[in-house]
Amino acid sequence: MKLAAPTLAASTNEDRNLALSLIAETLQKHSAKIFEANAQDIAFAKEQGIAPAVLKRLKFNEDKLNDVINGLKQLQTLPDPLQKLSLSRELDKDLTLYRVSCPIGVIGVIFEARPDALVQISSLCIKSGNCAILKGGKETARTNKVLFELIHQSVIDAGLPTDCLFQAEQHNEIDELLACHENVDLLIPRGSNTFVQYIMNNTKIPVMGHADGICHIYADEDFDEMKAIPIIVDAKTQYTAACNAVETLLVHRSVAKDFLPKLADALTANGVKIRGTKEVAAAISCEIIADDDFQNEYLDLVLAVKLVDTVDEAIAHINKYGSHHTDCILTDNDTTAARFMQRVDSAGVYQNCSTRFADGFRYGFGAEVGISTGKIHARGPVGLEGLVTYKYKLFGKGQIVGDYASGKSEFHFRDL
Amino acid sequence: MKLAAPTLAASTNEDRNLALSLIAETLQKHSAKIFEANAQDIAFAKEQGIAPAVLKRLKFNEDKLNDVINGLKQLQTLPDPLQKLSLSRELDKDLTLYRVSCPIGVIGVIFEARPDALVQISSLCIKSGNCAILKGGKETARTNKVLFELIHQSVIDAGLPTDCLFQAEQHNEIDELLACHENVDLLIPRGSNTFVQYIMNNTKIPVMGHADGICHIYADEDFDEMKAIPIIVDAKTQYTAACNAVETLLVHRSVAKDFLPKLADALTANGVKIRGTKEVAAAISCEIIADDDFQNEYLDLVLAVKLVDTVDEAIAHINKYGSHHTDCILTDNDTTAARFMQRVDSAGVYQNCSTRFADGFRYGFGAEVGISTGKIHARGPVGLEGLVTYKYKLFGKGQIVGDYASGKSEFHFRDL
Repeated sequence: MKLAAPTLAASTNEDRNLALSLIAETLQKHSAKIFEANAQDIAFAKEQGIAPAVLKRLKFNEDKLNDVINGLKQLQTLPDPLQKLSLSRELDKDLTLYRVSCPIGVIGVIFEARPDALVQISSLCIKSGNCAILKGGKETARTNKVLFELIHQSVIDAGLPTDCLFQAEQHNEIDELLACHENVDLLIPRGSNTFVQYIMNNTKIPVMGHADGICHIYADEDFDEMKAIPIIVDAKTQYTAACNAVETLLVHRSVAKDFLPKLADALTANGVKIRGTKEVAAAISCEIIADDDFQNEYLDLVLAVKLVDTVDEAIAHINKYGSHHTDCILTDNDTTAARFMQRVDSAGVYQNCSTRFADGFRYGFGAEVGISTGKIHARGPVGLEGLVTYKYKLFGKGQIVGDYASGKSEFHFRDL
Repeated sequence: MKLAAPTLAASTNEDRNLALSLIAETLQKHSAKIFEANAQDIAFAKEQGIAPAVLKRLKFNEDKLNDVINGLKQLQTLPDPLQKLSLSRELDKDLTLYRVSCPIGVIGVIFEARPDALVQISSLCIKSGNCAILKGGKETARTNKVLFELIHQSVIDAGLPTDCLFQAEQHNEIDELLACHENVDLLIPRGSNTFVQYIMNNTKIPVMGHADGICHIYADEDFDEMKAIPIIVDAKTQYTAACNAVETLLVHRSVAKDFLPKLADALTANGVKIRGTKEVAAAISCEIIADDDFQNEYLDLVLAVKLVDTVDEAIAHINKYGSHHTDCILTDNDTTAARFMQRVDSAGVYQNCSTRFADGFRYGFGAEVGISTGKIHARGPVGLEGLVTYKYKLFGKGQIVGDYASGKSEFHFRDL
């Protein structure tokens, strides 16, 4: 696979788009075969008594097929992420430096049991010229196998190297993958906090992604109550199990007394249970929690609530208890918003909208391989741009450093 | 320090430039004190019988002071690396996404005994709005202490947070630093291969830098012999102990017989010892090495030499034995050069010039904190741009995701 990487890196955007187009075609053509494998996965999952919410994610039907085919088409229209110049500089006469985007190399992606994720991830890797090792959730093993074989054949048919895609099917292959630090350049694990932590703690390979998603909303004193309630309800309930769902609400003390009862009504009507500090419990009926009980990613219809005196107290709370994912301020005061957005140390900082917008599709990236809370390399939703790095190309005509050290030659640094 | 980071991140370019200007001023003003401390370090090092080559790096004299002051001045003229927009996109009416550069946060730099490095590293961190923990080599402890105190006071005088710079003085503090993964965002170790490997293997903090510097030059069949010899001699001898010095020369078999004797003369005249495969030894007098003995970073006047049949064989050798640092092709055939430069998986790929050009100053970055062979985040010489990350700022007017999921609202994605 390491050997296929330079060849794939040298492929043209046309080659890679051809692969994407052949994938779309073959998935359509062989849909019956995919649906049949998926029916077997679903039947087996039901036998195992899997939760209905999870079952829904396993399903790969006509709708999901259309979604991934549309995704493949959109990806073809996006510009080539490779060969992009981010620096062109003449260091001296006939000595020219370029910084050019190139693929990262070999990427290992370990993802949850969602067949559409397999298509999305492999197509993002292909478009960005990266070799990929894919390991999906075991609950969709049959569907994944069929999808992978169709995708792999299309890639070969498009003339890309045979070894540029590899599917790991056994769970124990994850540990093998973690040990491959000489051959794998980046790991992207998706899944539970515990799982991602396990990956991060057991490999020397750089890991991109996130373990926790502890997102906050801070309702400032200058907020608009009418906007606030729908945003908080959406951020908590629109997809409770998502990493960008809100877990903690901070409310400015001056507005709490009036706002909390209205909010509590709206949340209760949507099935949300409130856990608040003593002070919150004095204003509305809720479970009482300790003043430092704010490290929880509930992923459930539960919201922690606390009062603060200032935007700075909110910022300090978020930087201490948050997971640097996505945090929002509700305020009509743009100066306060600017302070919050500059000082909260998170991949996404929002004013007056739901934290649920943190998503590659909603940012217009076409798709995402995951969301990163790391600060090194890609941050936030990771699309094509997060899957490339760069190299420096220097073109000379025989220059040596000795001449510059002795003063015989001198750099003139002129950006082209 | 984690608490100082948001304040420093929110500082203006003027504040940060003021700090740099005060540092330059105070270093000049207190030069006698610095030189005195340095004289003590040098005297102690001599007592310890330190090697003359190392001794030279410890020295901080009028020349070095002028160099760092010039560096500080140049850094002030560089544009603010923060608050730079790399994406501005209207997702929908009144829902606008920006991607804005911001500091990484808290950076730990562990560097060799070179007082000028302390000034360079701390000033790059200040200019890029990063808090820094600095640990320099013990041989210059006295000089470092004086320099750090002067720098720290200037930073405070410029109104930046007191806790934005910290100096670790004891060796055992390195292990404490490695354990700080909750408070330190990035480590940049500089030093020996063994030392950097130790850092990489003993921390959960992302590490930027390089352990090995195994750089190659490939002399292609279409090369210009007259350019080749000075380039090879420069790359090997101009600063032998540097990470960007060449360690292995690959020569196209068709030109070897004619070229090797001339090269051997030039290398021998410069004190370079050649280690070659049997085949090389048949053409010139040299020590014979095994066909797979190419993992060595000699950091000495020693060059390994091997013959290859094609540019692809050279590429494969470099991707297998190299350290992804800097590799050069000598050829007048631009097609061959393009193939080499696209497929060699290194931070720097050169045509017809010395590998010794791989350096932040020579790339026109003003200075560097180090050279990265990693592919995640900064690659190659790391200046200001490598010390920043970005965050997404999303400005809304009450938008919720539920409306987009239900079809009530629709994204229109328009880049601004």
